[in-house]
Amino acid sequence: MDKKYMEMALEIAEKGLGHVNPNPLVGAVVVKDGTVVGKGYHGVYGGPHAEVYALDEAGKSAEGADIYVTLEPCSHYGKTPPCAKKIIESGIKRCFVGSIDPNPLVSGKGIEMLKENDIEVHTGVLKEECDNINKAFFKYIKEKIPYLFLKCAITLDGKIASRNGDSKWISNETAREKVQFYRNKFMGIMVGIGTVLNDNPRLTARIENGVNPLRIIVDPHLKVNTELNIISNNYDKKTIIITSENNTGTAKYSELENEFGIKFITLPDYEFSVSDILRELGRAKIDSVLLEGGEKMISKAFSEKLIDGGEIFISDKILGDSSGKSFISGFSTEKISDSIILRNIKYNLYGNNIGVEFELQEV
Amino acid sequence: MDKKYMEMALEIAEKGLGHVNPNPLVGAVVVKDGTVVGKGYHGVYGGPHAEVYALDEAGKSAEGADIYVTLEPCSHYGKTPPCAKKIIESGIKRCFVGSIDPNPLVSGKGIEMLKENDIEVHTGVLKEECDNINKAFFKYIKEKIPYLFLKCAITLDGKIASRNGDSKWISNETAREKVQFYRNKFMGIMVGIGTVLNDNPRLTARIENGVNPLRIIVDPHLKVNTELNIISNNYDKKTIIITSENNTGTAKYSELENEFGIKFITLPDYEFSVSDILRELGRAKIDSVLLEGGEKMISKAFSEKLIDGGEIFISDKILGDSSGKSFISGFSTEKISDSIILRNIKYNLYGNNIGVEFELQEV
Repeated sequence: MDKKYMEMALEIAEKGLGHVNPNPLVGAVVVKDGTVVGKGYHGVYGGPHAEVYALDEAGKSAEGADIYVTLEPCSHYGKTPPCAKKIIESGIKRCFVGSIDPNPLVSGKGIEMLKENDIEVHTGVLKEECDNINKAFFKYIKEKIPYLFLKCAITLDGKIASRNGDSKWISNETAREKVQFYRNKFMGIMVGIGTVLNDNPRLTARIENGVNPLRIIVDPHLKVNTELNIISNNYDKKTIIITSENNTGTAKYSELENEFGIKFITLPDYEFSVSDILRELGRAKIDSVLLEGGEKMISKAFSEKLIDGGEIFISDKILGDSSGKSFISGFSTEKISDSIILRNIKYNLYGNNIGVEFELQEV
Repeated sequence: MDKKYMEMALEIAEKGLGHVNPNPLVGAVVVKDGTVVGKGYHGVYGGPHAEVYALDEAGKSAEGADIYVTLEPCSHYGKTPPCAKKIIESGIKRCFVGSIDPNPLVSGKGIEMLKENDIEVHTGVLKEECDNINKAFFKYIKEKIPYLFLKCAITLDGKIASRNGDSKWISNETAREKVQFYRNKFMGIMVGIGTVLNDNPRLTARIENGVNPLRIIVDPHLKVNTELNIISNNYDKKTIIITSENNTGTAKYSELENEFGIKFITLPDYEFSVSDILRELGRAKIDSVLLEGGEKMISKAFSEKLIDGGEIFISDKILGDSSGKSFISGFSTEKISDSIILRNIKYNLYGNNIGVEFELQEV
C-alpha cells in the first residue's frame, strides 16, 4: 500500500469540481507492479464513474493489479452499472478505499461485494482528506439539505458596505478571484433581495471552463425587476427566486416565469427561515450553496446555526463609520465568551487582504 | 564587504530593545581577516555606545580591521565621547554604515570625520533594515513628537468590547503575549480614562527582563480614583496623567501627586487633540507610545492622521451585536474608496488569531 497513489487519486478527483454536483468528486488510480496503468475521475453529473475510466485505461493490465479509489465503489445500478462489479470482472487483486459511502442505504455494500469475490480490501486510506473533498455531498446525502458556505468581504472594522450601500471594492482582485473559484465549486449562490437591488450583481462564475452556479434569490415580496442582471441575463435559465406563495399567479410572477425563464420556489407567508429555505433547496437536489449576503441573510443563517463553513475576506481598509453596514447584526451578546466562535480556522493570504476560512457545524 | 556582518550587527542591536529609549538601537561588529573579533550593542540609555563595546572586545585586533555599524557613529560629545574618534584611534581601516544619523544637526558629520582620517567608509549597507529598527527614534528626532503605534484586539466584526464593556478575552494567549512584547518595546502606553475605569488594567510589561513602560492616562476631568491599579500600584512612579490645567491644585490632584507619586501633564480646557498630547509627550522626552484604546482615543488619532503604525489582532469570535463597541467610529465615509487604507501590511499568525501589522504615516 502506498499513500502516494491515493494522493494521486485525490488530485485527479478535484478535476470534477463544479461539474458533478450533486454527485461526489471521485478519483481512481490502477497500479500494477509499481507502475500506474490507469487513472480516472468522475467528470460530469450522471456520467461514468472514476473507476470505469481508470479500469478501461488499464485494460488487460488490471489483472492482478491494485486500485486506489477515493470513495467506496458503488454496488447498485443507478445512472450507471455498479463499479464494484466492474472491479471484480477486471481481475483487480487489491482495492484501497478512502471514504465510505455516506448513504446509509448502501454504505459498506460495495466493499462487502468486493470481499465476497476474494478481493483484498483496505479501507480508511487518507480517509480525512478523502472525506474533506466531499464535505458538501456527505452533508447533503445524510441531511437532505445543502451544505451552506458563507462568503463575504469586510473592512477591518467588519463592514460590508458604506452608509450609502457602496461596496466596490472592499477586497482586492486576488481575493475576488477566489470568489469566482467558489462560485464554480458550489451548486448555487444565494443572496437576499436587498443585495440584488443594491448591487445588481451578475452572480456568474467568471473562471476558465467554469460552470455558472444556480442563482438563488430570496425575495419574499417579489421586489425584483426585469432590469436586473439576474433577470435580463437569465439566458442559462439558472435564476431561482424564493418568494411567498401569495405571489403565485400575479402578473409579475407570470412575466418572470414565462418571458424570462425564472424558476420559483414558494413558501408560506413572508418571513422565511433559512431552515425552510434549505429544506426546499434540498428537495430541488441542490447539494451546496454559497451564501453571499447581505447582512440580513447572513445574520439569520448564523442565528439558526445553519452555516457549515465559509471564508471571510478582510481587506486593508477601515470605514470608521458606525452607520456603515455590518456583515452581521441582531445578536445581543453580553459577554465576549458568548460570541460565535469559528473553528478549524485557516488563514489564506491574498496580498494585502486575508481570508479567514472556517467551519461551524459538524458535517 | 559582507552583508552577513551587518545582519549580525542588526541582530545584536535588538538586544537593547526596551532599555535604550529615547536612544536608538545600535549594533556593531568588528571583523579582521574574515573573523569576528568584537561585537557590541547599545544596551542602556546614556550608557556606552555599541562601537565602544565592539572595539574594546577587539582590542589590538581592531588595527586594520573592518567595523560594521547599524547607525552612523556619533561625532560629538554627548553623554559619552564621540564614537568616530574611538574608531579612528583604534586603527580601523574600513567602516560599513547602515542608517545615517537622522538628526539634521549632526547627520553625516561622523562619516565625514572618519573619511578625513583616511578610513574607507561605505554607507547604505542594509539601510532599510537598519532604518526599520529605529523608526520610532528617527521620527522623534525629526519631528520632536513620539512615534504612535496602535494595538487593539477586535472580534471578526470589528468590536473591542461587548455592549456591557466586557472584553475578556477577545484575543488568545499567544496574541496577548505579543502585546507584552510591545509594552516593553515602546517607552509609554497610552489609554483613555474610559478604558481605565472599565478594565482597570495594570499596563505593565509582563515579560522576562522587561521594562515597564510609562503609563499615560488621558483624563481631562480627572475621573481616576485611588482604587485603580495604575494609581494604587504606582510603585515604579511611572503613571502619568494628562488632565485639564483647571484641575491643578485640587485636593484630588494633590493627593495623587503627593501620596501616589503620579506625574501630571496639563493642557488647557477639556477637549485635548492627539496632536497637543503628542507634543507634550515629546517635550517630556518620550519617543514612542503604544496606543491601547479606547474607541475615542483611537478614532481621534486616526482622524488627526497621527497613527504611524500598529497591529490589530483579529480573533476567531463574532459578536454580531451592533451595540457592541467598535474600535473606531465617528467617520462619515460615503464611499469605500474614501476609507482609511493601511499600507505595508504584514500578517502575523497567532494560532486561531491573526495580527494585521501596518503602517500609516511616512516616517
